[in-house]
Amino acid sequence: MSLLILTTGIDEQNLARALQDTDPDLDIHIGLDSRNLDAVRFVLAWKQPPGSLTKLKNLEVIFSLGAGVDHLLRDPHIPDVPIVRFVDPNLTQRMVEYVVLHVLAHHRYLQDYISLQEGAEWRELDQPIASDVNVGIMGMGQLGMHAAHALRDLGFNVQGWSRSPKNVENITCFAGQSELTSFLEQTEILVCLLPLTSQTKNVLDRQLLDKLGTWASDRKPALINAGRGGLQNEADIERALREGDLRGATLDVFNEEPLPPKSSLWKAPNLFITPHNAATSDDKAIARYVCGQIRNYEQGRGLENLVDVASEY
Amino acid sequence: MSLLILTTGIDEQNLARALQDTDPDLDIHIGLDSRNLDAVRFVLAWKQPPGSLTKLKNLEVIFSLGAGVDHLLRDPHIPDVPIVRFVDPNLTQRMVEYVVLHVLAHHRYLQDYISLQEGAEWRELDQPIASDVNVGIMGMGQLGMHAAHALRDLGFNVQGWSRSPKNVENITCFAGQSELTSFLEQTEILVCLLPLTSQTKNVLDRQLLDKLGTWASDRKPALINAGRGGLQNEADIERALREGDLRGATLDVFNEEPLPPKSSLWKAPNLFITPHNAATSDDKAIARYVCGQIRNYEQGRGLENLVDVASEY
Repeated sequence: MSLLILTTGIDEQNLARALQDTDPDLDIHIGLDSRNLDAVRFVLAWKQPPGSLTKLKNLEVIFSLGAGVDHLLRDPHIPDVPIVRFVDPNLTQRMVEYVVLHVLAHHRYLQDYISLQEGAEWRELDQPIASDVNVGIMGMGQLGMHAAHALRDLGFNVQGWSRSPKNVENITCFAGQSELTSFLEQTEILVCLLPLTSQTKNVLDRQLLDKLGTWASDRKPALINAGRGGLQNEADIERALREGDLRGATLDVFNEEPLPPKSSLWKAPNLFITPHNAATSDDKAIARYVCGQIRNYEQGRGLENLVDVASEY
Repeated sequence: MSLLILTTGIDEQNLARALQDTDPDLDIHIGLDSRNLDAVRFVLAWKQPPGSLTKLKNLEVIFSLGAGVDHLLRDPHIPDVPIVRFVDPNLTQRMVEYVVLHVLAHHRYLQDYISLQEGAEWRELDQPIASDVNVGIMGMGQLGMHAAHALRDLGFNVQGWSRSPKNVENITCFAGQSELTSFLEQTEILVCLLPLTSQTKNVLDRQLLDKLGTWASDRKPALINAGRGGLQNEADIERALREGDLRGATLDVFNEEPLPPKSSLWKAPNLFITPHNAATSDDKAIARYVCGQIRNYEQGRGLENLVDVASEY
């Protein structure tokens, strides 16, 4: 069984080592310079060079290194073989940690207390309790669902929005374009975990931000984007922060990554910036997942977490 | 039924209004200048002037405005009547919010990412997953127990330490002086929610900090104190932060409150300071609690959450 690692911006050697440790029988190659591309049946891809997958004549399965596949599908030349998304309990747990941390940070005015601390000022701010605060999650897949449950357990009112209707205990679910405005109006802290598709590109713009929380409370809303940078209009978010229409934001993802040192976002008020690390998986977890799926596939059992190319996730 | 509000540093008028709204039959007085002190059967106290309670000849019950009663018991002249601690689900929920926020903030290196952001630097730090991190909670009362469960639900390994042995599902419990060192050695993030008693005064000193995490991991430990300022040696904590032996800390409470503007703690590295607001209750919640307890008491039912004066909590 020959597997090719085809990425940009990833430490491929470490990943190859982890895969080999997990399955010593796997014949692992890195990059398009590999000699025997015709033997490759599986590919593990992250931002592969456009068109490169078409060179693999005997490709059977594409594994995405991310939970999202936008990095993969921006390549217009994708062979018609099954695509498997990366789904990992560790990745889910890490994302839940991140979302809960940043929802609580905005809920408890951490940015304001940091500013007060810089001025050596002891002052208590009016503080609602979690059960008086509506948190809205856009994107109710694996990650969104788990984050919703964790936030609900902490006492928040949690509601979700997704493209297709979902039914989740104790969580009000909105679906589709027609219910988006109601969802936003009742959301004080918005968490975006949407996949990046042609439908969701730039969805986090000024028009959306202006609807946030208008029915939920007198407090200004906050935004957390841990999905993809392409979901957000960064100029709109920065302006909303500078004008005080957003009381705070957390961005883990950006249109250009790394975020360039000269970007004015670095200095925007009440913004937490993290380097796309909300949920990164270690190589061992990736290796376990990919080798497990290949083993199942070779034994005639089905592949899990297949991507629907039409809906782009 | 006559109730006297006897505090320093509290908005007594607002509190009186909330009590009156909750129970219009209650005869409410504020302070020692009240004319008819002999009619007073109940007192609601927070840092009362020492000796003042002895002036209430017909006092039957003392209600503490805090979950802890150190503020009350520092007065050597306490009449021998039942003392009721303030216990409130809202207060518990707020404390859980605070503890989870700050455990996650240290776990996810938020202080480091804030520093990186100030330098417009995009850099990912090695990040353990919650299930590889031991969080230790000192003080396993109502607040500690609920915080422990919330942290366990987020994936952390949680262990507790308390004076007397406890039995909690999925949480390793240590008890007493003899097990304190083992507890500390296995704790990477320490949360202190102890009551302040003559036994616990100054417990968070350099000697304790030096034991933290020595068996848990190679990472430096972090400290969160949301109990009482008297539990901590502030000079020791500041030195440990400046010398890098603590990688981060959160202090909500201080030996002198408000923390004086000239205190060097304001500028200590990797420290979050909040103004004793981890869990504050609103007047309505206090009124509901006190009026409910008085009603029960008048109807011959018992008082709840009684303080054991010998153990000071």
